[in-house]
Amino acid sequence: MKQDLLKISDLSKEEIFGILQDAIAFSSHQKDWQFPQRKLIANLFFEPSTRTHYSFASAEHQLNCRVENFSAQGSSVEKGESLYDTVKTFESIGFDAVVIRHRQDEYFKELADIQIPIINAGDGKGNHPTQCLLDLLTIYQEFQTFEGIKLAVIGDIKHSRVAHSIQEAMNILGGKTRFGGPKEWMDTNAYEIDDLISWADAIMMLRIQHERHESTMNLSKEDYLIQYGLTKKRKEKMNKHAIILHPAPINRNVEIDTDLVECDQSRIFKQMRNGVLVRKAVLKRAFQYEF
Amino acid sequence: MKQDLLKISDLSKEEIFGILQDAIAFSSHQKDWQFPQRKLIANLFFEPSTRTHYSFASAEHQLNCRVENFSAQGSSVEKGESLYDTVKTFESIGFDAVVIRHRQDEYFKELADIQIPIINAGDGKGNHPTQCLLDLLTIYQEFQTFEGIKLAVIGDIKHSRVAHSIQEAMNILGGKTRFGGPKEWMDTNAYEIDDLISWADAIMMLRIQHERHESTMNLSKEDYLIQYGLTKKRKEKMNKHAIILHPAPINRNVEIDTDLVECDQSRIFKQMRNGVLVRKAVLKRAFQYEF
Amino acid sequence: MKQDLLKISDLSKEEIFGILQDAIAFSSHQKDWQFPQRKLIANLFFEPSTRTHYSFASAEHQLNCRVENFSAQGSSVEKGESLYDTVKTFESIGFDAVVIRHRQDEYFKELADIQIPIINAGDGKGNHPTQCLLDLLTIYQEFQTFEGIKLAVIGDIKHSRVAHSIQEAMNILGGKTRFGGPKEWMDTNAYEIDDLISWADAIMMLRIQHERHESTMNLSKEDYLIQYGLTKKRKEKMNKHAIILHPAPINRNVEIDTDLVECDQSRIFKQMRNGVLVRKAVLKRAFQYEF
Repeated sequence: MKQDLLKISDLSKEEIFGILQDAIAFSSHQKDWQFPQRKLIANLFFEPSTRTHYSFASAEHQLNCRVENFSAQGSSVEKGESLYDTVKTFESIGFDAVVIRHRQDEYFKELADIQIPIINAGDGKGNHPTQCLLDLLTIYQEFQTFEGIKLAVIGDIKHSRVAHSIQEAMNILGGKTRFGGPKEWMDTNAYEIDDLISWADAIMMLRIQHERHESTMNLSKEDYLIQYGLTKKRKEKMNKHAIILHPAPINRNVEIDTDLVECDQSRIFKQMRNGVLVRKAVLKRAFQYEF
Repeated sequence: MKQDLLKISDLSKEEIFGILQDAIAFSSHQKDWQFPQRKLIANLFFEPSTRTHYSFASAEHQLNCRVENFSAQGSSVEKGESLYDTVKTFESIGFDAVVIRHRQDEYFKELADIQIPIINAGDGKGNHPTQCLLDLLTIYQEFQTFEGIKLAVIGDIKHSRVAHSIQEAMNILGGKTRFGGPKEWMDTNAYEIDDLISWADAIMMLRIQHERHESTMNLSKEDYLIQYGLTKKRKEKMNKHAIILHPAPINRNVEIDTDLVECDQSRIFKQMRNGVLVRKAVLKRAFQYEF
Repeated sequence: MKQDLLKISDLSKEEIFGILQDAIAFSSHQKDWQFPQRKLIANLFFEPSTRTHYSFASAEHQLNCRVENFSAQGSSVEKGESLYDTVKTFESIGFDAVVIRHRQDEYFKELADIQIPIINAGDGKGNHPTQCLLDLLTIYQEFQTFEGIKLAVIGDIKHSRVAHSIQEAMNILGGKTRFGGPKEWMDTNAYEIDDLISWADAIMMLRIQHERHESTMNLSKEDYLIQYGLTKKRKEKMNKHAIILHPAPINRNVEIDTDLVECDQSRIFKQMRNGVLVRKAVLKRAFQYEF
């Protein structure tokens, strides 16, 4: 039996904890664990990505997989081939699993008949389950629990793949999530930035696609930072135990003052390290291996 | 001595059977056979491809090769480097073989002085020998012989890399090939589609490049399917033992009704699986290894 | 302690000889040497390259590394991510070293805080240390010394990544370097081409970017070859022991008559082979391994 990972909401509380425990094991006593038989994995990225793409590749290499990277460009997708036919091709030619990022929301609904595991690396504005899991891991490593943990998510909530998934997961796990940001980007009730900053145990700044939004917002980068970003002044208001998260890529001096990216309370590059651990755990789960 | 594979017509009947036997061995008792020493292979694709490119990559990985994928984009080809100099470079920097797809007919004529094996993955409108071999393998697996086997090839015969090669090969092997399709695309005498359908043991539907042809043909996709495609109605007229082939990518509901792509008589995804087996056999032959 | 390789001028005479000795060892008794633990290496190429890119990849594979190739296209660089954040990401997600080509002069100054080894595969119009080392290796293999060796470099000296580095290195090592070419491209005193040809022990023809320069020069390809290129006639004037070098890609019949590219005195494809040896030595040095 294969195990896809398509949406965070497909996972029970127990399954989430199972993945996090495996990720932690990969950071400690199972550092060198590999698949008993080598797997052939295709990373199918139909949208630009650095972190997600190469952290899957890193995870795959660490697990002793053979890795092929596919981009739509230079492929039969340019000849109009459907996603189903492309994925069915990879299944037919001997690939053991596929990791997919695609601009279409819930593209995986077309792929119900595929027999090999599918791992969703981001679909449209919808889901990005391994991002959610790495955020959870980073929070869990800090507080050893989710019960009562307060998470603030600030930025473009409406168009975010991350915001609603993490809220849903935090709810299941016993944490609390509040949102903030420009009101044009809120699809739910929002809190004042400064209130969120002093309330939260973990503050997640979302990336804004400034090039796209500037016209609609009439707000310069400098103004965004002052009104909604994490400035040095706001950092002073944070709880001493609170941590800073960001899914990256970062717009330095837009969502966050550049000097805070690697400050003592930032876990931004730790999130990236955690991304590899979580993806190793998800790949292990895909083939239902035990340590 | 290295062994290139450039054109199907370079192979004797015995050599074709040798490759097919090896491919069959790779599907059964030699499933795990690998090169005694790891090889470093470059896949040089100057034209888009999914199936051919990644099925070579899959074959190479299964044989324990180290694989590098090269696309013209982002290379010195953009600076005007000749094909000979590019391939000679790969030879010089330690690659053991190259797999090449290139838009120029018989590009390999420039490459006579290259010392490492060259495997042709498609040249211009000319040759595509591993496609031909995988078609032959699929037919052979079905009928255990080529003697008297009747193959119908339907579509754009004139511009096809596949049509004339398979005809040539079938002639050598004792089979019969007939063509059909719009008369603008015939460079030889053609048969009525319905007659071909009821005559054939194997029906190969070619991909049409509809975007390119529509203007010259004054024929919509719907009309193409009705006049020349494999409809459900035509499928009724097929021999019960006959099989459906297609080199893919498929234009669903143009060459073939979408519901027939994975029907009981279709071997379209089996062809893809066979592509890997045939390519493993061709790579083994390139270095003249014995099992 | 990691060891970057950023500029040839960062290396002492002893370090240069150390790398050359290791490269020679890799061509003979250490042919099969590999890293005791497998390394995960990212080749980050922000500019087109065939030779440098794939010869690093070849070197890495030979040393038993796991290799990922990154191009700016299809990455978060398209979303405006800084070079520092991109490289820090690769460090964070488990890569052991990065090889970088980037159009910006001395891009590596931004990367001082990166903890993993950085190997410069070419920056802007500035440095290309592994190219310089492979040129040195080719000269050394020929003459077993640099003392008194006379090197002529002909072409676009002003815009060359290679010309000034090799001059600097030859000075340290006891050799002499003279330049020649169109006076628009000289930033130092130049010699007559014919005088250089009969003077030199090694003649390095630089690639000209003809498409860019033609307008400024009012000189056709044919005229360039006659005035500044290596013609068959000029080859007659070369010392019998002298060798021809070219960093490639070659403009055949512009810098050099096409018939001379693989003549007895040419070491052009040997330079490519040497590139792999030198890069293996540089990678070994990056992690400070001993044979």
